[in-house]
Amino acid sequence: MSNEIKVGIVGTQFMGRAHSNAYRRVSDFFDLPAPPLLRAACDVNPSDLDAFAQRFGWQTKETSWEKMVSRDDIDLVDICTPNVLHMPIAVAAAKTSKHILCEKPIAMNADEARKMLDAARQANVRHMVAFNYRRVPALALAKQLIEQGKLGRIFHFNAVYYQDWLVDLNFPFVWRHDIKKGGSGAHGDMNAHTVDLPRFLVGEIEAVCGAQQIFIKERPLQNGKGTGAVTADDTVYFLARFRDGALGSFMATRFATGRKNFLRLEIFASEASLIFNLERLNELQFYSRSDEGSEQGFRNILVTESSHPFMNTWWPPGHIIGWEHTFVHEISDLLLAITEGEPVYPDFYDGLRCQQVLDAVCQSANEKRWIDIPEK
Amino acid sequence: MSNEIKVGIVGTQFMGRAHSNAYRRVSDFFDLPAPPLLRAACDVNPSDLDAFAQRFGWQTKETSWEKMVSRDDIDLVDICTPNVLHMPIAVAAAKTSKHILCEKPIAMNADEARKMLDAARQANVRHMVAFNYRRVPALALAKQLIEQGKLGRIFHFNAVYYQDWLVDLNFPFVWRHDIKKGGSGAHGDMNAHTVDLPRFLVGEIEAVCGAQQIFIKERPLQNGKGTGAVTADDTVYFLARFRDGALGSFMATRFATGRKNFLRLEIFASEASLIFNLERLNELQFYSRSDEGSEQGFRNILVTESSHPFMNTWWPPGHIIGWEHTFVHEISDLLLAITEGEPVYPDFYDGLRCQQVLDAVCQSANEKRWIDIPEK
Amino acid sequence: MSNEIKVGIVGTQFMGRAHSNAYRRVSDFFDLPAPPLLRAACDVNPSDLDAFAQRFGWQTKETSWEKMVSRDDIDLVDICTPNVLHMPIAVAAAKTSKHILCEKPIAMNADEARKMLDAARQANVRHMVAFNYRRVPALALAKQLIEQGKLGRIFHFNAVYYQDWLVDLNFPFVWRHDIKKGGSGAHGDMNAHTVDLPRFLVGEIEAVCGAQQIFIKERPLQNGKGTGAVTADDTVYFLARFRDGALGSFMATRFATGRKNFLRLEIFASEASLIFNLERLNELQFYSRSDEGSEQGFRNILVTESSHPFMNTWWPPGHIIGWEHTFVHEISDLLLAITEGEPVYPDFYDGLRCQQVLDAVCQSANEKRWIDIPEK
Amino acid sequence: MSNEIKVGIVGTQFMGRAHSNAYRRVSDFFDLPAPPLLRAACDVNPSDLDAFAQRFGWQTKETSWEKMVSRDDIDLVDICTPNVLHMPIAVAAAKTSKHILCEKPIAMNADEARKMLDAARQANVRHMVAFNYRRVPALALAKQLIEQGKLGRIFHFNAVYYQDWLVDLNFPFVWRHDIKKGGSGAHGDMNAHTVDLPRFLVGEIEAVCGAQQIFIKERPLQNGKGTGAVTADDTVYFLARFRDGALGSFMATRFATGRKNFLRLEIFASEASLIFNLERLNELQFYSRSDEGSEQGFRNILVTESSHPFMNTWWPPGHIIGWEHTFVHEISDLLLAITEGEPVYPDFYDGLRCQQVLDAVCQSANEKRWIDIPEK
Repeated sequence: MSNEIKVGIVGTQFMGRAHSNAYRRVSDFFDLPAPPLLRAACDVNPSDLDAFAQRFGWQTKETSWEKMVSRDDIDLVDICTPNVLHMPIAVAAAKTSKHILCEKPIAMNADEARKMLDAARQANVRHMVAFNYRRVPALALAKQLIEQGKLGRIFHFNAVYYQDWLVDLNFPFVWRHDIKKGGSGAHGDMNAHTVDLPRFLVGEIEAVCGAQQIFIKERPLQNGKGTGAVTADDTVYFLARFRDGALGSFMATRFATGRKNFLRLEIFASEASLIFNLERLNELQFYSRSDEGSEQGFRNILVTESSHPFMNTWWPPGHIIGWEHTFVHEISDLLLAITEGEPVYPDFYDGLRCQQVLDAVCQSANEKRWIDIPEK
Repeated sequence: MSNEIKVGIVGTQFMGRAHSNAYRRVSDFFDLPAPPLLRAACDVNPSDLDAFAQRFGWQTKETSWEKMVSRDDIDLVDICTPNVLHMPIAVAAAKTSKHILCEKPIAMNADEARKMLDAARQANVRHMVAFNYRRVPALALAKQLIEQGKLGRIFHFNAVYYQDWLVDLNFPFVWRHDIKKGGSGAHGDMNAHTVDLPRFLVGEIEAVCGAQQIFIKERPLQNGKGTGAVTADDTVYFLARFRDGALGSFMATRFATGRKNFLRLEIFASEASLIFNLERLNELQFYSRSDEGSEQGFRNILVTESSHPFMNTWWPPGHIIGWEHTFVHEISDLLLAITEGEPVYPDFYDGLRCQQVLDAVCQSANEKRWIDIPEK
Repeated sequence: MSNEIKVGIVGTQFMGRAHSNAYRRVSDFFDLPAPPLLRAACDVNPSDLDAFAQRFGWQTKETSWEKMVSRDDIDLVDICTPNVLHMPIAVAAAKTSKHILCEKPIAMNADEARKMLDAARQANVRHMVAFNYRRVPALALAKQLIEQGKLGRIFHFNAVYYQDWLVDLNFPFVWRHDIKKGGSGAHGDMNAHTVDLPRFLVGEIEAVCGAQQIFIKERPLQNGKGTGAVTADDTVYFLARFRDGALGSFMATRFATGRKNFLRLEIFASEASLIFNLERLNELQFYSRSDEGSEQGFRNILVTESSHPFMNTWWPPGHIIGWEHTFVHEISDLLLAITEGEPVYPDFYDGLRCQQVLDAVCQSANEKRWIDIPEK
Repeated sequence: MSNEIKVGIVGTQFMGRAHSNAYRRVSDFFDLPAPPLLRAACDVNPSDLDAFAQRFGWQTKETSWEKMVSRDDIDLVDICTPNVLHMPIAVAAAKTSKHILCEKPIAMNADEARKMLDAARQANVRHMVAFNYRRVPALALAKQLIEQGKLGRIFHFNAVYYQDWLVDLNFPFVWRHDIKKGGSGAHGDMNAHTVDLPRFLVGEIEAVCGAQQIFIKERPLQNGKGTGAVTADDTVYFLARFRDGALGSFMATRFATGRKNFLRLEIFASEASLIFNLERLNELQFYSRSDEGSEQGFRNILVTESSHPFMNTWWPPGHIIGWEHTFVHEISDLLLAITEGEPVYPDFYDGLRCQQVLDAVCQSANEKRWIDIPEK
């Protein structure tokens, strides 16, 4: 069909799979004037690429991203590579007028992010950063409640992102342990999410003060020969002051034994509070001071009603959805924005703003002092 | 002081301890015109009696309940004995014009219960059955919400009472295993509570159909010589129809591995629902259809506010109370009723009504059919 | 491809959508020698059929199930119709040597179920009943733990299935309210699941005693003209004795205000216990008496590890899956069984056994007495 | 009796009540060679004093703490005053050879704390700081598990202490809002607890970096005439490095809408993890990597078994205790230590160490940089 949006994806690992799944499912549940066409997949490793393309039905293959980006049968470039490649691919894609979806964190640092933003704006293409948690229905509901004024003045925004897959001493050295390939470790991977969420929900951070730690300094190489030196952080904590006076904290770690993908938000405000946990992503806890005095309590909203964001298209109430559905929501909105020529969020500006906070935290951890966030 | 209420207690085991504790604490927190005086303790076992009286400060001792009941320096007889003795002690106490607090279940059967009720009424004394869970603040709050009309028409009242102390094959034979001493096993001990609660909260049961089971038929005697035959039920389940059309279920068992004192109520009604669990007795879950549509959820009320029943006398919000506090509340209300000459509930009529249901369940289990509950 | 399994589906509503989704996703995550081909969709309503077929990519359409079942380009007939049509379609499909997947409950009654079983056996085709909850990873893990002997002797199997969509008085009259079309109401729809699960996990039921209730007798017709008389149950409760002596309870209701799709299992046994709740289907609670004494407690297993059933093909630990994934698992196993010519479970015999229990409960509710389940 | 320990208490408010309750209950449940005698109560406000002494049975009264401390019929001085009086009373008490129990935080600053420690050591009396949460049974169990080596290397110690009583704009100005009377606000009151607990459980803090905020700058005076300027913090957050390399965070706030007395600990270590929440103080969550792989999960230990710390003297399993019981445990241990002439912990050295951390956090918040904690 002429009205399809032809997608080229770079990267075939975890995120490549998650995005592929979303492209394949989105039209079964969301009404899109222009559905996606899985046109080309790209990876430097040919055997990974073959398996990936066959499994998810990508029509053609490339082992060079430069080549794929320059093809004229691609409308949208989807970047699922290690972080170090985000900027070059995105800038190249913008130059050939491709729309761009880029995994988070947007780049290795804010300078790169700004180049990406400038390139995308100049090319006048749609640009989006894959902060998929904005489209967890429970968090989209949180956004609604806040926009309706139900929270009032924000006092606290506390976020943790706990995983535990590095507690195992035998977990091998991978690219995420190398600061040159990832820019950072847990920080860029996990705090990128938790830094985007307050920007989505409650406002801008003014200043940060952080600390990092590497608990395990050496890890076995995957080829079985020796070890690699871990240079990327295992954990980063930081305190934050928001522009409106709220106080916040952020803790990301891959050493939270027993927690698998535990992203918890706690938002305390003058009229109400919200609690969220990604391991129970179909639920949102809401406490309201406008409930009658002796009946106040955290209510656990099962966010599966047709009145809840994104949920009218799925299943009846109580039939929960999974983590992967957030990508379907994200890609649905992106494809619609491309068709309609409208902006879509979070865009590269959001990616840049997040990266500025991440960079400031790193600087703060190095210099052991508070660092202000640029005003824009 | 002349205005003290002189208490005589019979039985020095678990319930004797719980009641003693309540008598000793009640005036520290509740304003009573006539506080209790711990006048006399009674037990057939002199060594148990001595230790008990000394620990809790009972002023005098008796080894014959007949003797204690006939003393004229006793105002209130508190019955904490095996069930088989409830009726004779209560009737004797009434005959000498003593007020009476009796542990649950009120008696071995409804006939005995009626004798107790008749005796107490004839003597015009205060009479109370120690269904202490009516005075868990969370359940008193539930009662308030129901009386305020917030639940509407009741559809379901489901109760479980799970314990696990008999799962251990080596747990010895005690009086509770002997149907002649207890009247029943888990049924009278645990279902007595859960049958009283719907009467307190939602209304009368019309008919029941039950089943029972003894999982372990023989248990070692405490003297180490042989085993005793278990004749009292390990578990009793029953279905119930309420007069107003609600459907209910009740399950009591001492074989719920991992559950220690887990009494859960689920009340589903046309406007709202309530969930309660005794292992978290400071909490009440409340779901209301009058909340805004997309914000509905079970809210967990931490029942520790000064606006909550019984709680203004204890500690600031969030400082939880324990299981034993329910007896302090109960005894506070009883002593006040004695002083003021007013009725107090649950009384022996409530005990009788509960016993009628318990009896009908036993009959139903034996005859394998539904049994109607007497109208009064 | 010659090795595809050509599927014809009858019914385009809720279950039709859930199955379609599964056929479209299964090969993206499971390695199947013969993937499904969505060959034909059937519905008596042409406009529903068109929309359905287009959305999910069904290649051809039929408005007569008789016609579709007789086509020779169909290998597998998938029955997602109202219950009254299960038997005729299944028997016809068997006669033309089609494999069959049938939604639950298998039929209107056990007689119908036996006809289906006989027909399928005679035709030597694969036959499966869509008790999809057997393939919730947490329940498949429960099965593993039980097979490893970790539970010991079963004392109790308690199940509830709570929904609340009928509490709304304005909810219109639909086919599920008509006993002639559904055979029963909440009972066949919800207890069918909860009756299959103990058969999967712990063993056969010996006798049952049940009660039912219709709370709202009349509902508005969807055309806005008058009301329809509700003849199917709103709720059914029953007690059960298992052959091995365990005592069980089952409660299904659509009047559990606040509960959306709350299927809770509680299994108490001599060595361990298990708790499950479908609204948090990625979790299984497990209590083991073999843990050290002072460390015993219900542990909440987040069933998302690659070592857990079905989960190695999805996402990393902590990235939860949804309700719909159970159908992917089910259909994966069915397609594999078809390819390999092996039996697959739950089959029509399981459907029959479940139906015998459901029938006995209805008879029990009518006759107000216990009813034995046939031995086979 | 000659063997009683004669107690003199200073302060009759919240803590005065909690301690009084403990003195009155301790002998009913714990076997003490020398039980407490409630000899004298002291408060500058005579009417508060009269009501307090009468309610809890204090035998004599004083309105001057200097006078009470100098009485020779007092063995133990219990300090429940505003923080500014802790040091002078404790030093005076030591000089007259009284044993001392002091509420937390120990003093206005570390200098004062050291004076108290020196005075107590010189007088060779028992000295204890009322960090009562060390004697929550669940936390005493946590200590046991850590001492048994079940946690391994500690990676993270994260604590929050959330309350919400200051969210109400109308809450009046009290001494806790005046930095001159309290030394600090939420910090000294709440972080004092959470700073003591890692010292009890996992080790010493090396350096901290904090931030504070006052959200509401003016509050109405209790006399109704005008407002008072809030000078004590509403919230203090800080990051911490432990000597052994662990990374920690601490957040105390009185603006956590919906949280009443929510003190949550999360301890993540190489072999296991522990989670605790004071609002459910009878429970401890424990995750162990030594459980079998597919069975790992956070287990919720109901800390009410007779094998659990302090619990063998109370009630059967599952019968929960309340917040106030922690004081009974504390005072039992203190009285025993006095009788036996043995040290008891947490003592004034623990109070000093805690105060050093608190002071460093304040300095850090003022100077916006990390501050090292003194080595001893």
